[in-house]
Amino acid sequence: MFNQTHKMNLQVRLKSRPVGLPQAQHFELVTQPIEELGVDQVLIRIFYVSVDPAMRGWVNATNNYAQPVTVGDVMKSFAIGRITKSKNLSWKEGDLVTGLFGWQQWAVVHGSVIDRKVNSGMLSDLPLSVTLGVLGLNGVTAYFGLLEIGKPKSGETVIVSSGAGSVGSCVGQIAKIMGCRTVAVSGGPVKSELAKNYFNFDVSVDYKSGHLLSDIKKACPNGVDIYFDNTSGPISDAVLPLLNQSSRVVVCGTVAFENWDPPPLGPRSDRQILVTRSKIEGFIAPDFQHRWEDAYVQLAQWLKEGRIKIKEDILYGLESAPDSIAGLYRGENIGKRVIHVANDD
Amino acid sequence: MFNQTHKMNLQVRLKSRPVGLPQAQHFELVTQPIEELGVDQVLIRIFYVSVDPAMRGWVNATNNYAQPVTVGDVMKSFAIGRITKSKNLSWKEGDLVTGLFGWQQWAVVHGSVIDRKVNSGMLSDLPLSVTLGVLGLNGVTAYFGLLEIGKPKSGETVIVSSGAGSVGSCVGQIAKIMGCRTVAVSGGPVKSELAKNYFNFDVSVDYKSGHLLSDIKKACPNGVDIYFDNTSGPISDAVLPLLNQSSRVVVCGTVAFENWDPPPLGPRSDRQILVTRSKIEGFIAPDFQHRWEDAYVQLAQWLKEGRIKIKEDILYGLESAPDSIAGLYRGENIGKRVIHVANDD
Repeated sequence: MFNQTHKMNLQVRLKSRPVGLPQAQHFELVTQPIEELGVDQVLIRIFYVSVDPAMRGWVNATNNYAQPVTVGDVMKSFAIGRITKSKNLSWKEGDLVTGLFGWQQWAVVHGSVIDRKVNSGMLSDLPLSVTLGVLGLNGVTAYFGLLEIGKPKSGETVIVSSGAGSVGSCVGQIAKIMGCRTVAVSGGPVKSELAKNYFNFDVSVDYKSGHLLSDIKKACPNGVDIYFDNTSGPISDAVLPLLNQSSRVVVCGTVAFENWDPPPLGPRSDRQILVTRSKIEGFIAPDFQHRWEDAYVQLAQWLKEGRIKIKEDILYGLESAPDSIAGLYRGENIGKRVIHVANDD
Repeated sequence: MFNQTHKMNLQVRLKSRPVGLPQAQHFELVTQPIEELGVDQVLIRIFYVSVDPAMRGWVNATNNYAQPVTVGDVMKSFAIGRITKSKNLSWKEGDLVTGLFGWQQWAVVHGSVIDRKVNSGMLSDLPLSVTLGVLGLNGVTAYFGLLEIGKPKSGETVIVSSGAGSVGSCVGQIAKIMGCRTVAVSGGPVKSELAKNYFNFDVSVDYKSGHLLSDIKKACPNGVDIYFDNTSGPISDAVLPLLNQSSRVVVCGTVAFENWDPPPLGPRSDRQILVTRSKIEGFIAPDFQHRWEDAYVQLAQWLKEGRIKIKEDILYGLESAPDSIAGLYRGENIGKRVIHVANDD
């Protein structure tokens, strides 16, 4: 076996800081030898990397959860891979792991960067890429956002923006399991059809139909009890006037607008919130990280029972990475977007 | 004693339905004999009636909690009075009572319209008008809105719009009792001074200063943990960008805008709510009615200890009623507005 340090590593690095949406030209592909492992570091061979709407925020300078990616660094992303070398006592060669390993073929990271060891038994026949979707951040976002913030009760109406998306489709299916009436809002006939016939929403609304307001009203004859919002914007403006008393709005994403600095204008919702005594609450899944493993067990169970179905949009090769975030915002993906980097052979 | 039915009753009735703010011309004064008591009804001699910002909503056709006042009916309002005649076994002559008795000198109402019998012992030396303020709806609004929705923790920063108002001043003083740092926002130098030096806010901001944004930023160097909002509008737009992680916005009033149909435009807050995982919740005190008596006992205690101070704006005679709601929105009152109708002699 030849020396690991002579193997080359293809990386996608942030070339310049975008204002607004990161486009292909904000990234560059660089090939360099894999670094030597330092103290407590591991080498991970990456199989899939993730492409998520939130990554837009990771490269912007303002208004976010964490420090933005430094220009010149490998683009941050979730990934799944297998440890091929370890200088960390907590992790050993052969472990299947997920974490923020970045857009690259090989990751040399401190053991603390690993989120978790994936239980291959739990996966059984499921493809590895599901660990970046429903058995990853998307799944726990849907699970805790709906169950802990939305608190659904049987018979309630749950409406989901980006209902055909990787989080939204999971929210709708969990809401259905909880006995709710579910309404998806998504863009275009293909996604709309997918939400209804594949993800099993009771009603599916196409926000590009030209009559969003009346379509949403018709889809919610008993009003809205939970609005799981991945978009903000015109969909929210159509949904909020339909809120019932004591309803809950889970603010999970804001993809309708590329730029929030300054915030775009919209109809004020204060009066509606007051009159209905509703609650609008921001949510990100890492706030529930201590309970993720429990959620994975439940989600894997539902997957195997066919009660949750998934759809993936797989790009092949890191060469497709630079344009992949912009593509999400163009709405070109059907299902959870991941990039295949290598096979687990 | 002459026959009650021959006594005359001065009433203020809704003459026409306003679009937006009710003005003097939307009401009329009518004098008519007091009606005979029907089954289970009582006759109440009214001492004070209340004038509240929420009454604007009570005469509008849309977007409110309850059926609007019918044109031709006595204007709905909170009032305190004494029962002078009773055909209801639950209530007896001499009982001091509050409820929605309306803008009139005498109320003939079913016993169920009475909210509560006021414990004169609890009042001791306090004027009867406090039962329409801090020992009435204003007090329980401040008490439950801050404690149950805002959930203040010692050391947190609490900012209150309409901080010199009857609800806001009470919120600030309770927040102070809870160990919070308190910031009032109010209009003009008189109210601003009152908030600081009389109601004991740590900092007082005048929203008419011309540099609201920088004043609020300066007043909250550690950000905002609780925003108790009575106004919506420009004050909210200045406060929301300062929300800390897991902060709470209590939406209690929306007086910055006369008309909410359609809702006025403003900067969208979704992104800020998401990034900070904050909560915006609508609140009205009647949702806590089963616990009001406990709150009154606590509030009366704080009043007597001087830890809560009150300010009243007393108008004399029902002739001043028709213009009194519009006056609130013109910002002409200093303190809780009530109308004196008769002495308790």
